[in-house]
Amino acid sequence: MEVIAEERQKASFPVREMTHYLDGGPAETELKERFMQELERDPFWKIDDYADISLAEIRERTMQKAKIVVHHLANEPVEVFRKRMALISIAEPAFWTRLGVHYGLFIGALQSQATPTQFSYWVSKGALALNGVIGCFAMTEMGHGSNVAGLETTATFDEAADEFIIHTPTLTGTKVWIGGAAHTVTHAAVFAQLIVKGQVHGVKCFIVQLRDTATFNLKPGINIGDMGKKMGRDGIDNGWIQFTNVRIPRSQMLMKHTKVSRDGTVTEPPLAQLTYGALIQGRVAMVVDSGNTAKKALTIALRYAAVRRQFAAKPDGPESKLLDFPIHQYRLLPLLSQCFAMHFTGVVMDKMYVDLTRDLESAQPGQNMDNILEALKETHSTSAGLKAFCTWTCLNIIEQCRQSLGGNGYSEYSGLSRMSNDFAVQCTWEGDNTILALQAGRYLIGCFRDVRKGKKLPPGVGYLNQLPSILTKKCPYTRPEELSSPSCLQEAFNVVCANVVKKVAENFQQMVKGGMKPDEAFEQCSAERFFAAKIHTLGYIFSKFSEGISSAPPSLKPVLVNLCSLYGVYTVVENAGVFLQYHYFNSEQMDILTQQVNNLCQIIRKDAIPLVDSFNLSDYIINSPMGRFDGNIYQAYFDRIRRANPAKPHPYFESLVKPLLTRSMAVEEAPEIGK
Amino acid sequence: MEVIAEERQKASFPVREMTHYLDGGPAETELKERFMQELERDPFWKIDDYADISLAEIRERTMQKAKIVVHHLANEPVEVFRKRMALISIAEPAFWTRLGVHYGLFIGALQSQATPTQFSYWVSKGALALNGVIGCFAMTEMGHGSNVAGLETTATFDEAADEFIIHTPTLTGTKVWIGGAAHTVTHAAVFAQLIVKGQVHGVKCFIVQLRDTATFNLKPGINIGDMGKKMGRDGIDNGWIQFTNVRIPRSQMLMKHTKVSRDGTVTEPPLAQLTYGALIQGRVAMVVDSGNTAKKALTIALRYAAVRRQFAAKPDGPESKLLDFPIHQYRLLPLLSQCFAMHFTGVVMDKMYVDLTRDLESAQPGQNMDNILEALKETHSTSAGLKAFCTWTCLNIIEQCRQSLGGNGYSEYSGLSRMSNDFAVQCTWEGDNTILALQAGRYLIGCFRDVRKGKKLPPGVGYLNQLPSILTKKCPYTRPEELSSPSCLQEAFNVVCANVVKKVAENFQQMVKGGMKPDEAFEQCSAERFFAAKIHTLGYIFSKFSEGISSAPPSLKPVLVNLCSLYGVYTVVENAGVFLQYHYFNSEQMDILTQQVNNLCQIIRKDAIPLVDSFNLSDYIINSPMGRFDGNIYQAYFDRIRRANPAKPHPYFESLVKPLLTRSMAVEEAPEIGK
Repeated sequence: MEVIAEERQKASFPVREMTHYLDGGPAETELKERFMQELERDPFWKIDDYADISLAEIRERTMQKAKIVVHHLANEPVEVFRKRMALISIAEPAFWTRLGVHYGLFIGALQSQATPTQFSYWVSKGALALNGVIGCFAMTEMGHGSNVAGLETTATFDEAADEFIIHTPTLTGTKVWIGGAAHTVTHAAVFAQLIVKGQVHGVKCFIVQLRDTATFNLKPGINIGDMGKKMGRDGIDNGWIQFTNVRIPRSQMLMKHTKVSRDGTVTEPPLAQLTYGALIQGRVAMVVDSGNTAKKALTIALRYAAVRRQFAAKPDGPESKLLDFPIHQYRLLPLLSQCFAMHFTGVVMDKMYVDLTRDLESAQPGQNMDNILEALKETHSTSAGLKAFCTWTCLNIIEQCRQSLGGNGYSEYSGLSRMSNDFAVQCTWEGDNTILALQAGRYLIGCFRDVRKGKKLPPGVGYLNQLPSILTKKCPYTRPEELSSPSCLQEAFNVVCANVVKKVAENFQQMVKGGMKPDEAFEQCSAERFFAAKIHTLGYIFSKFSEGISSAPPSLKPVLVNLCSLYGVYTVVENAGVFLQYHYFNSEQMDILTQQVNNLCQIIRKDAIPLVDSFNLSDYIINSPMGRFDGNIYQAYFDRIRRANPAKPHPYFESLVKPLLTRSMAVEEAPEIGK
Repeated sequence: MEVIAEERQKASFPVREMTHYLDGGPAETELKERFMQELERDPFWKIDDYADISLAEIRERTMQKAKIVVHHLANEPVEVFRKRMALISIAEPAFWTRLGVHYGLFIGALQSQATPTQFSYWVSKGALALNGVIGCFAMTEMGHGSNVAGLETTATFDEAADEFIIHTPTLTGTKVWIGGAAHTVTHAAVFAQLIVKGQVHGVKCFIVQLRDTATFNLKPGINIGDMGKKMGRDGIDNGWIQFTNVRIPRSQMLMKHTKVSRDGTVTEPPLAQLTYGALIQGRVAMVVDSGNTAKKALTIALRYAAVRRQFAAKPDGPESKLLDFPIHQYRLLPLLSQCFAMHFTGVVMDKMYVDLTRDLESAQPGQNMDNILEALKETHSTSAGLKAFCTWTCLNIIEQCRQSLGGNGYSEYSGLSRMSNDFAVQCTWEGDNTILALQAGRYLIGCFRDVRKGKKLPPGVGYLNQLPSILTKKCPYTRPEELSSPSCLQEAFNVVCANVVKKVAENFQQMVKGGMKPDEAFEQCSAERFFAAKIHTLGYIFSKFSEGISSAPPSLKPVLVNLCSLYGVYTVVENAGVFLQYHYFNSEQMDILTQQVNNLCQIIRKDAIPLVDSFNLSDYIINSPMGRFDGNIYQAYFDRIRRANPAKPHPYFESLVKPLLTRSMAVEEAPEIGK
């Protein structure tokens, strides 16, 4: 198709070089291309008919996909396998979850909470390779999600038998949403209140076998059912579980931290903080997934916009491409800049996480851990905010892309409604976004207090070290290019974030001084706390974006700097209130910035297709006729519709339509009363 | 359940009286209750298992529902039937669409475009009662949606035969998304380019029979297929249609406006503007539907929040209700105020539409129509903005409600994900929201020009009559109650809207003065035009809300005024940038307003459940265990899950799970090379 070929000729940068830069080098690009080819050729990895098959078929097809992936799991280095899974996540999110529950959550629980002996035992039983053991993660209950400490399931120590009795005491204590429970798993990592000698010791983790490996029959005392139809990710078989006096040996409590001895002595661990690590890993993965999913959505929307035409600029002239309308650029290109921002944030976060884990693991006994723990705390809080705002941003990007396709976005074959429904759960699981954002806000209040006490804060909140002088800074610029330069925007975020954090922290302190308990004061300032986390996180993403592109090759830098500026300017304009309220920008500057969004969109427009091309997602991964590389969208769309909906005899003409069409319209008779 | 009973005791207002006020009087409430009872008792109107039945079953079940509704259509006054349909729309949106395509669009096309003789003919064939004729509305094509003038289907006059030849020339000319085409209709109102003697006369409407009434066989030259799986509203059977040289008599062109005589003379109508009316009716219906759908979503989310508990305020104390957390109030109560705002806007709009239609119909020949036409033009533009921003607001409300249920919002049984997927299309059909918003913005630019010329504008844009003095007004208040009073907020909207309209209008004028063509200038300022439409529409909704409650009984007024203030204050805070930029509020005032959102939420919190109770939607309509009136959500939810997912033998344990679990992990052998 010439229309899209002509778009490719306009590229201001070498597309393949951008792909390499985004992937982290040519070898990484080749690896991804190998993954894509392997998936595309594998008949069990067919995904282009999901719109038209039943829940039961989707579940079975998802399970079929496991075989080859488990082979790779057993045969390739873990870092290669992780990259494979990151790609699979955007091809088939439900499969990613179904395997991820075992591989990430169940094994993750063993890694973080089993003693080395316990860990070796489960590995010897086949847990690592899903051979003899397939596990699920039984934490959430019907009545308790975010408040893990309030879980109702009990694990009562029976000293005589040296066993724990796992029990679901109430309906609300039923484990729900347990991924894999309905059709896949043999074992569960069960979170339950430890009760020893009548005393409750809080929530601990226990390994409970749910089913016989050979027959898949439920073990005595276990009841499991299917959670049924979900908004999305139907390929994952979430189930509910009720335990009725299920006995397990004492050694199936994971005892890396808290221990229960033969005689029922409970020993608590000295430092629980180190378990943060597992949470951070999940959050980093979700930031990366937000970026990747946004790439897929934007590839569809922007390629469609380059082919679809609407309204003629001149009477009798050809209609214009959607992408040539300033409003369409305004709708999509700032989202493209957000996508790049999340990409680079993901890269930086991933590296931070790897470094942090290395520092923790290589720490020597007796070494001063203060700096590492401070960095851990900051990363834990920052990643909470990032998980929340990146998943929300991605969900919004998908929906905006979907709407930008007009009526065709409502077709399941566009791929975008399914993407949205699949993605939506990311805003809830592994920490409800609102609650995570509030945690991030709480950390910021703590930082403000610390800096007042003279403590030096780590880089992620480093702008607070410049208190109080930073508070009153004003932007000195008047020219558009100055105002939208990365350095100006970075200062804008720093100044405004510092003000916002100060505001909520002082309100909090005032409430506490007034006699309120700190927990209540945190609740009372939660809207402000949420807002502080939002602005801080948006600024943090901006700084990671600009950090991420600082080492870009000269051929890529101009377009990346423009995208970074667009991200910053658009974010400022969308949150104009706070930037005006603290007087970093005045009304005239804000006017110019508003206009700069349009200007930057216009500059980036010519690179729109080359930029989504640089994401290098194959038509198989894109899985949408509207997002095809060759731009032949209408023919592919019509073919997909016809293939999925072949002509069939009318299913209910005789029984329903015909009686309606041919019914008698005579007025119904009524007897006369007479006299 | 006591928890929800205790909520009901806190009501600050008489709930039944509120229901009557919202409905428009006790008789209206009784009518709605009668409708609800009729639906609930009718086995064909079962809707509580839609999550678990197939597309084919949903389609058939939707058709079954038609029988009783068609009976009412034939036997009750049109205004009663319209109210019935407004309720049905939130119980079963797909059915509403399936009937609405015939009843609203097909009949609507006849009403607005057929001559009286033609109209009588189709009525005599049974069009009004779906007896002999069931119609669809074939406008959209694969390559053309918003740009109706660009449609490709042709209707070529064959003078010799006195016939039109209807033809689809290209793939992109295929009619798509035609509701009812796949399985329901016999006839279509087809929009096609009229070609007479080789000359194109623009898009006109033609009635084409698609199928034989007795056999449902397709007529010669007609090809129809199913559009297949959609994001939502699966009960409506959208189809695609291709016409291949289909001949129809000349009299099947609807000739109320443009006429083609026997000898091929084309006569154009003097005034096309009056066809606006049909568009306005659809938009008003969608504003009303946005309010009603939001009521349903909020009933679910707020009842859930009154029952669900999370985190204990004190160690070992009971956990708090979600609704008692300030952040949860902040998440939901401003949305509740938006719901009321849309309700009252819908009521006012409906009345405006009825009055306008009456004025138009009762106009005498020779009467000066200027005022009526001016009002028509304003209503047309205002309703465009309202359709856009109310449907977006409602879609956001549904999604926020869904997320507020945490993981349980991801269950299809919560009803909210389905509601969101069903509702999403409202942002696209009957005018893509972005395009409608731009139309509204274009009107505002015209108003600014008119007022500069000394013309007096109609009430909806009346604030522009106060130009230029209004531009520099500043808010004089400092106390929270003053700042959040309806009069202060109304002035705030007026001042800021006037500034925003001036800004975009002057930019536009400057571009035109600089030599740009007006159409191009409109495109270049489209982001600002969109923004002007947004702020204007939000202010318009505020004014209709405050107008709508001005006559409320004294017992209801306090809570309604608080809701109105919350709507206004929240809208100002969410759009703080523009209120600060034009200096109506200063930073300190904005701080106070921000705090007022929390304060108003806290005041309204005690009435949250009584307010959703006053919507008076039965459990049947709510159709979600989480939104039950009695608050027994967990038992109902668990029952629904188990009923929908009864225990079954494992479908693929032997074929897929067992081979994985029990596979040999021995390293594969390779032959030795030897020497």
